[in-house]
Amino acid sequence: MPDATNLTIVLKSHPVGAPRPADFALVRDPIPKPGAGEVLCRTIYLSLDPYMRGRISGVRSYAAPVEIGQVIVGGTVSEVVESNHPRFQRGDVVVGYDGWQAYAVSNGAGMRTLDRAAAPISTALGVLGMPGLTAYVGLLDIGRPQRGETVVVSAASGAVGSIVGQLAKAEGCRAVGTAGTDEKCRYVVDELGFDACVNYRQGLPASLAAACPNGIDVYFENVGGPVLDAVLALANQGARIPLCGLISEYNATSPVPGPNWRPLLAKRIRVQGFIVSDHLDRAPAFLEDLTPRVRDGRLKYREDVVDGLENAPAAFIGLLQGKNFGKLIVRVGPEPA
Amino acid sequence: MPDATNLTIVLKSHPVGAPRPADFALVRDPIPKPGAGEVLCRTIYLSLDPYMRGRISGVRSYAAPVEIGQVIVGGTVSEVVESNHPRFQRGDVVVGYDGWQAYAVSNGAGMRTLDRAAAPISTALGVLGMPGLTAYVGLLDIGRPQRGETVVVSAASGAVGSIVGQLAKAEGCRAVGTAGTDEKCRYVVDELGFDACVNYRQGLPASLAAACPNGIDVYFENVGGPVLDAVLALANQGARIPLCGLISEYNATSPVPGPNWRPLLAKRIRVQGFIVSDHLDRAPAFLEDLTPRVRDGRLKYREDVVDGLENAPAAFIGLLQGKNFGKLIVRVGPEPA
Repeated sequence: MPDATNLTIVLKSHPVGAPRPADFALVRDPIPKPGAGEVLCRTIYLSLDPYMRGRISGVRSYAAPVEIGQVIVGGTVSEVVESNHPRFQRGDVVVGYDGWQAYAVSNGAGMRTLDRAAAPISTALGVLGMPGLTAYVGLLDIGRPQRGETVVVSAASGAVGSIVGQLAKAEGCRAVGTAGTDEKCRYVVDELGFDACVNYRQGLPASLAAACPNGIDVYFENVGGPVLDAVLALANQGARIPLCGLISEYNATSPVPGPNWRPLLAKRIRVQGFIVSDHLDRAPAFLEDLTPRVRDGRLKYREDVVDGLENAPAAFIGLLQGKNFGKLIVRVGPEPA
Repeated sequence: MPDATNLTIVLKSHPVGAPRPADFALVRDPIPKPGAGEVLCRTIYLSLDPYMRGRISGVRSYAAPVEIGQVIVGGTVSEVVESNHPRFQRGDVVVGYDGWQAYAVSNGAGMRTLDRAAAPISTALGVLGMPGLTAYVGLLDIGRPQRGETVVVSAASGAVGSIVGQLAKAEGCRAVGTAGTDEKCRYVVDELGFDACVNYRQGLPASLAAACPNGIDVYFENVGGPVLDAVLALANQGARIPLCGLISEYNATSPVPGPNWRPLLAKRIRVQGFIVSDHLDRAPAFLEDLTPRVRDGRLKYREDVVDGLENAPAAFIGLLQGKNFGKLIVRVGPEPA
């Protein structure tokens, strides 16, 4: 064991509005011991994702909230350092849900061993992990894009949005993103191959209209706010809106009014909220379909890696402000040789 | 011909806010002559429906707007008084779309001969007409209620809502209505057999919560406004919202903000706007299914009949304020013997 203590980050207070560093506390504990049927994992990468804002809010939603003093939840890629579990061996690299801590004991539920030859292990938290599955299910199963249609996705340079647009292109659609900086927009078009990307801080709704000359058939919604208003004005009859996230509202202290519903009626629009955890049955098909595309470079991804678990709170606060550029990951410890 | 002149009501000005009588003009014209392949129809009943507010607004929506000076559109039950059309004979009673006028020439497109023995001919504008098909498609095809679920419908004593709740009961669901007076609520429960009905002018959201102890699985939306907010707070995971109308907003002069979308996301709610004219392929099944239920009294309906075409504007203005009680119909002329 390289270190005798375990670093964990626990919730100190439920944030009101934007989370502050003081809402989080770093705690040093002894490294736990795995019991019978358990494994001890050393965290290599921790995923930071917008949904965590809901979990630490103290409000019960679709999943149990994180209570004060509890370790904050999160997806992890880890090395098994001790195993009393028949499915896992010391040295295995696994993807699991160990949360914001350097070491964790697990009974193996929901844990999966990664094939290190298939793809970089960090991708199990992004393009080949929960964000990728979210994009896959939300776009293909719920959005159901048809060849020649226009697909718009917000937060287009992010972990989910970047994949949505690339999948839309692969389906023969026009892919249009929205993002918060010109640099992100350039990346979305030049590197990811979207047809267009609009900086939502400038020129909405005209800029989006110019990018969508044939209107909008699918809007993959990650953000809420003015982008949604602009999309509804441009939506075609029968448009579909997979509703994945509303990050622009997550720090709001009172409910933000939504758009007027007249366009939903007149244009026969379908809005479908979804949570990826309801769709884990699609994970095998998703991995089989996308792993080769990641390996041969057809599906591109970008990671924004922050070093050190102690920097997770600041990185997470920045995520809610759109400061990350690509899938936000904390490197908690080194990859095994 | 009983009368040498034709009475028509044309649009005089696009209403701003609530329509006023001065937005309509009565015009007397000569009765038109049918040409080759045409029929002359004498209007017996004219249907008044909320969607007409959109058509006279001057704003292009899902159908072409009524222009100034044009006869206002509307569904009609008529007697064929002259026919140069092989499918129709003098004396036939037909349902068509002749608009706000006492006589109309038609080429027969979209016109259907009624079986006077099957049901009262006025029902072709209500329970066995467009409102009935709207309820049928919206509830069964889009809402997809399952036995034991709770279905809420707004404007529950109206042409569409009254059928939605009765169909929900027939599917084994708990049916809960909302309406604007205690008298309407009593009718909905005592006559139509809903399990409960809430006067939305009093005690929302607590009254709706009390009426829906197991939450809400399907909300058939006709009105918008505070009922929708209360429903979203009570909606169960996976709830469906067939969006049929937003009558509380039709007189608004600027877009009314909608509800916050967080519940749609957290509860995986599906909202589906629909327009009945997209679903005319379902009309044969609908008629086959519901005509016997109307005939034997299992499916109840109530008509609010106004006498005289000249009274159509005032009746329509009242419809948008919820002053009607049941399906609003104008008796333009007598039924044939």
